[in-house]
Amino acid sequence: MLYVVGHKNPDTDSICSAIVLAYFLDGVPARLGGVNPETQFVLKRFGVMEPELIRSAEGKEIFLVDHSEKSQTLEDLEKGKLVGILDHHKIGITTSEPIIYLAKPVGSTATLIGELYFKNTLDIIGGKNKELKPDLAGLLLSAILSDTVLFKSPTTTDIDRKIGKKLAEISGIEDIQTYGMELLKAKSTVGKMAPEEIVKLDYKEFNFNGRKVGIGQVEVIDIGEIQEKKEKIYRILEEKLKEGYDLILFLITDIMKEGSEVLVVGNKEAFERAFNVNLEGKSIYLEGVMSRKKQVVPPLEKYYKEISNKK
Amino acid sequence: MLYVVGHKNPDTDSICSAIVLAYFLDGVPARLGGVNPETQFVLKRFGVMEPELIRSAEGKEIFLVDHSEKSQTLEDLEKGKLVGILDHHKIGITTSEPIIYLAKPVGSTATLIGELYFKNTLDIIGGKNKELKPDLAGLLLSAILSDTVLFKSPTTTDIDRKIGKKLAEISGIEDIQTYGMELLKAKSTVGKMAPEEIVKLDYKEFNFNGRKVGIGQVEVIDIGEIQEKKEKIYRILEEKLKEGYDLILFLITDIMKEGSEVLVVGNKEAFERAFNVNLEGKSIYLEGVMSRKKQVVPPLEKYYKEISNKK
Repeated sequence: MLYVVGHKNPDTDSICSAIVLAYFLDGVPARLGGVNPETQFVLKRFGVMEPELIRSAEGKEIFLVDHSEKSQTLEDLEKGKLVGILDHHKIGITTSEPIIYLAKPVGSTATLIGELYFKNTLDIIGGKNKELKPDLAGLLLSAILSDTVLFKSPTTTDIDRKIGKKLAEISGIEDIQTYGMELLKAKSTVGKMAPEEIVKLDYKEFNFNGRKVGIGQVEVIDIGEIQEKKEKIYRILEEKLKEGYDLILFLITDIMKEGSEVLVVGNKEAFERAFNVNLEGKSIYLEGVMSRKKQVVPPLEKYYKEISNKK
Repeated sequence: MLYVVGHKNPDTDSICSAIVLAYFLDGVPARLGGVNPETQFVLKRFGVMEPELIRSAEGKEIFLVDHSEKSQTLEDLEKGKLVGILDHHKIGITTSEPIIYLAKPVGSTATLIGELYFKNTLDIIGGKNKELKPDLAGLLLSAILSDTVLFKSPTTTDIDRKIGKKLAEISGIEDIQTYGMELLKAKSTVGKMAPEEIVKLDYKEFNFNGRKVGIGQVEVIDIGEIQEKKEKIYRILEEKLKEGYDLILFLITDIMKEGSEVLVVGNKEAFERAFNVNLEGKSIYLEGVMSRKKQVVPPLEKYYKEISNKK
């Protein structure tokens, strides 16, 4: 049986893309972790069930969506049969046999599914050219809006806007902006959440030239929502650092101001050098930085590669 | 400027796919080595110029076709900007930023270009939906016939056959089989070639868990063509082994008998274990083995991974 699965600590794109791609591939949508409040809002809004929680790849055919890195996927991926990947991140895996791989620098994985659908060409990645129903179109639209922060993130492309508009028509969403704000508010329930939950909400682990680096992110409409929890979050990150990390960053992204406060724990020199900044306290505000993928991962990866080459 | 380039020691698929994809991407077709006799025959047949020979990625935008492994591409790839990959081999690279990547287990890269063209969807990988002229359709057909050994190789899929047929119609090739035999004969000029040239003809280097492995291949219609050169080829491989190789294999593939005689130099135990065979002399005939990619690389990669894990 084919399982379509997004990354650990799934966000709306990982959950919704898994559900919709599984529909086209006649597979089972799956997830590697809990469904966050924003995604819960989306699934409820369109009346779609949560994907199945899986913990092992053993005996399964696997199609990854929205990620390719080993640190973000099933621990025992090699026990299953990886048949394909659909993603919009950097290439994070090598394989020992040919597989289907479609990746492209667009705002979300959902954008790619939409693009293939509207071109009637899902069969390129092994899918059937079935009809996209309004509920599933709504999931894809939500994933695009979530990943591109309502088309404001620097990862946004014209393709995201074009596909988003077409999906809105099918799904019956008349005003994308209004729906998008509802979505962001559902995400921004951080005011009510415990610091432990906030840290886990959207946390990803990376391996940069052998060094383990964690990067968490939370998006807020008003930074005041999280202000009083920052100290506690910082202490949780310090504790987490002991799990073999070289560096942990936590981005508090202010959607309205379009920038992020970055909490830095661990190898502060790496952070300062990678971003060419001076860190004086525990955190620094980086104007315009909204995308982990496009603005945070590349400079860190470059830095770790350089120091590794010097050795 | 965007350069579209195939692998080192280019074969017909690497050269022809680079030419045709460059046409759709408005880029420059390029190559990393000499044009072999078969490809020369194809270019002459359809009146198309050789791609430009390049030696460095510096200052260039690069789109790779028919490969992704670092050992098979430009030495200084990181000095250029890698924008995309179109391939039918295993995933052999990771990147630090998102790129376009389309891979799929079909018989040739040319098959994928043809598939995108007939679906009017080359824009998915950044191409323009221009018309495919008969000469370029002829190149793609030739690449498919070459890589799938006239649809006989186990890598052949129904997609290759379907796309090949459509390309034949556009290119004006009325009888695919007859043209295919002409092509294979052009390849099989090994009878006239020096052993040094035969070894270089289609030679690929791999890195399996830190071990350097070379796998060369030559396809013949009649194994007699090469019989008397085998000893000399073996001595050349023994000499080559000193360049830091753990193992070198050389496949003499008999297209008609559909099997390969494999010359083995270096770590013979690795070969025996990977293929579960007993090697008594310098070579062994493996019935049914025609594809380096599908039948030779995977067992070797698996073996080297396993011994590396045991350490």
